[in-house]
Amino acid sequence: MSAYRLDGREVADALLDEVMEAIRSLDLPPKLVFVRVGDDPASISYVRSKERLARRAGIFSEVVVLPADADQQELLSLIARLNENDRVDGVLVQLPLPDRLDETAILNAIDPEKDVDGFHPVNVGRLWSGQVGLFPCTPTGLITILDHFGIEIESKHVVIVGRSNLVGKPAAALFLRRHATVSIAHSRTKDLPALVRQADILVSAVGKAGLITPDMIKQGAVVLDVGFSRDDGKIKGDVRPDVAEVASYLTPMPGGTGLVTVAMVIKNTVTAALLRRGGND
Amino acid sequence: MSAYRLDGREVADALLDEVMEAIRSLDLPPKLVFVRVGDDPASISYVRSKERLARRAGIFSEVVVLPADADQQELLSLIARLNENDRVDGVLVQLPLPDRLDETAILNAIDPEKDVDGFHPVNVGRLWSGQVGLFPCTPTGLITILDHFGIEIESKHVVIVGRSNLVGKPAAALFLRRHATVSIAHSRTKDLPALVRQADILVSAVGKAGLITPDMIKQGAVVLDVGFSRDDGKIKGDVRPDVAEVASYLTPMPGGTGLVTVAMVIKNTVTAALLRRGGND
Repeated sequence: MSAYRLDGREVADALLDEVMEAIRSLDLPPKLVFVRVGDDPASISYVRSKERLARRAGIFSEVVVLPADADQQELLSLIARLNENDRVDGVLVQLPLPDRLDETAILNAIDPEKDVDGFHPVNVGRLWSGQVGLFPCTPTGLITILDHFGIEIESKHVVIVGRSNLVGKPAAALFLRRHATVSIAHSRTKDLPALVRQADILVSAVGKAGLITPDMIKQGAVVLDVGFSRDDGKIKGDVRPDVAEVASYLTPMPGGTGLVTVAMVIKNTVTAALLRRGGND
Repeated sequence: MSAYRLDGREVADALLDEVMEAIRSLDLPPKLVFVRVGDDPASISYVRSKERLARRAGIFSEVVVLPADADQQELLSLIARLNENDRVDGVLVQLPLPDRLDETAILNAIDPEKDVDGFHPVNVGRLWSGQVGLFPCTPTGLITILDHFGIEIESKHVVIVGRSNLVGKPAAALFLRRHATVSIAHSRTKDLPALVRQADILVSAVGKAGLITPDMIKQGAVVLDVGFSRDDGKIKGDVRPDVAEVASYLTPMPGGTGLVTVAMVIKNTVTAALLRRGGND
């Protein structure tokens, strides 16, 4: 037996179709501004792939690049201008920022209504309080993948490995909103295999190649791999490929959750535009 | 064997001593305003016990009572005035509100810096993002109880039954912040006993008398009972009293978590005053 491949490309394409449909209801296409500090090659490549998808969807985008030695005040002033600019629907500050900058203060400065990454405390609070808001792209992408392939969530035991603000914690909130039982494990968890073995749906978001092995997987589980690491230049997930022999569904890496994350950035931009302009979402 | 009794009175007294010490560093004692709508007997009694404790701690408090038929706008105007009043450090709207009122909109209207219940999305977001803020009183009370009795949290498997905004979800955040492995169960959880049996620390916050029975408890587990229901006028917890024969520590009901919750309201008022007035917390 080999697990069914949860193809990220297919889900991203479907999301993009949905987005293009929604854009038609707007007088003016949404506009997304990326803020990048310095010339980190990974950041350049991430921003480029998001830009490419924005263009394909018919969203205006713009990249503002600050020099690597830009200071906190410069970045905050830029964000303040983008917040005030009514033409801008979404502001995305590409992480990680240089160490010298206070990442929390910068993310807190983005207008929550333009916060397409969903990292602002106001959006985090809305997420956990069951309210409408902009929510982080990787976890909303996971739910979208499951929905796309008709995989049930309600009453399933979802085990999430990793408790970051980007993936683990918001994924817990979203799975709870969909009535799953949720367990959150991390580096201080004592018996990780015993917990993972209970998962009907497993989310691994650690960034440690081969962390999840077939003996840790319950027969027929659904496995979503969000881990990302490089080994000799090759992209690796947290999940060892032979987990496919035990799981019923598995996201490939690459070609899985990452592609959907990028598409969710575009979807969030349209959601932000619809909410700000008083359209229906 | 019988479980050690985690006496709420003892913890509440210690909290109050701490609070009185902190108040001494302020020029003017903190001021807390309770807002009550109508004459629900339970609400009257809750507000009265919080008032009593405030007085004992040396906090000024005031109760504003609106008539049972007060409308949304009246309540919002009152909150706006309390937000603007620099003398007021904390605002607590006693729940539940009459059905006709939009509870979410009202809680969202309280200045997050005066939100001593910790229900405002901004405080919820701060809680989940690892930032400083005002956090809900029952779950912070649970952590305080464990700390008071020297019970370790890090790397323990904490199982929380109930996913409310008041207890279950914020408790999950706080236990994660303290490096526990956290599982959240609720009414749609399939095999509750199997999950509860894994708990090193169990939090039950459902309100269903006798839900937790001794066969569901791992030998030596710590059991925190937050459930609350009335049976023939008698107060009952979620946890059956004979769980004491299996657990190592158990909160009594009444006399356990509830007393600490009330003391945490007072502590949050002092924290709010210190944060607002630029003192150190």
